[in-house]
Amino acid sequence: MKIVIVGATGTMGKYLAGAFEKDHEIVRVGSSGGDIRADITSLKSIEHLFEEVGSFDALISTAGPSYVGPWNSMTDKEFRKGLEGKLMGQINLVLVGQRYINAGGSFTLIAGALTTDPQRNFANAAAANGAIEAFVRAAAIELDKGIRINAVSPTVIEDSPQYFPYFPGEVPVTMRALEYGFRKSVFGAATGQVITPR
Amino acid sequence: MKIVIVGATGTMGKYLAGAFEKDHEIVRVGSSGGDIRADITSLKSIEHLFEEVGSFDALISTAGPSYVGPWNSMTDKEFRKGLEGKLMGQINLVLVGQRYINAGGSFTLIAGALTTDPQRNFANAAAANGAIEAFVRAAAIELDKGIRINAVSPTVIEDSPQYFPYFPGEVPVTMRALEYGFRKSVFGAATGQVITPR
Repeated sequence: MKIVIVGATGTMGKYLAGAFEKDHEIVRVGSSGGDIRADITSLKSIEHLFEEVGSFDALISTAGPSYVGPWNSMTDKEFRKGLEGKLMGQINLVLVGQRYINAGGSFTLIAGALTTDPQRNFANAAAANGAIEAFVRAAAIELDKGIRINAVSPTVIEDSPQYFPYFPGEVPVTMRALEYGFRKSVFGAATGQVITPR
Repeated sequence: MKIVIVGATGTMGKYLAGAFEKDHEIVRVGSSGGDIRADITSLKSIEHLFEEVGSFDALISTAGPSYVGPWNSMTDKEFRKGLEGKLMGQINLVLVGQRYINAGGSFTLIAGALTTDPQRNFANAAAANGAIEAFVRAAAIELDKGIRINAVSPTVIEDSPQYFPYFPGEVPVTMRALEYGFRKSVFGAATGQVITPR
């Protein structure tokens, strides 16, 4: 299977690429490294990415830039970070990528537990996650040729301890549980689902 | 109570203004009419709106422009209609409006059942709704001075029969149930809730 991993130089993407590369062809996409560089906040960059990738069987996105910071100083400007990144960036990966994905392929986007379990400083990521989760449910009923779409929605992850203080009460998700969440989406039959590895 | 209704010339906003005007001071805001005109897709217009309104006790938004149309021709361009309208427009009403709202006041935004019950042609509205619902949960834990925020999430409404064919299986929400959903948010004590009038 040819699997495109967008965000492949990040903590999650690197782990997933390592887990899947034994059995599959992995195309690593990152903003500053990988096999192909792409900036998901730019529609042009996404279009170039797929022109270079060509056809593929699965796309995994772990790329979710968003604004983290205090509510009081949050304005339109800060909010656009997650709007153009985690939200529209990932949605454009699907809107453009559907022209290149093989029949029976799958898209797996990254959301997060903040959708339902908010934490201080994360209103921007929460909104982006909520949009992504609703989007995959809506896109699933319209994609044809057996193409599936899901979101994986972890809480803070084991290998990002720098975020633990921001997520009081959240048991960190192990990298193995995270990997199996993505496995369920990519190799299973589910579509329109929000998979919550815990 | 001074209640600002954004979307006051639309079907929902007009009804709510009529229901609440007996007991409250209503400021009707519309894109093409009302006491004050404002375009919620423009941050400048929102800033001017609040300069004109001054302090207030409750803001109701029923303003949710989004793109309705077939999945196959949906691109970044179409998707931005809901992104700038129902999503960022409403979020900017809160980000800017919080500087003008009185202590103990409330924001009530409009979402919709498409968040969890998608229908064909509505992926854009679904994503916007999902973002709004997650946003109110996140904003509720950061707003101070007793300021509350909720979303009302109806399915298709009784007075918009032109939409019935797009929502097979959805029992239309009566205008009375819709009104009571907004009453719960504006006059009750709930915050961070998605109220689903049915």
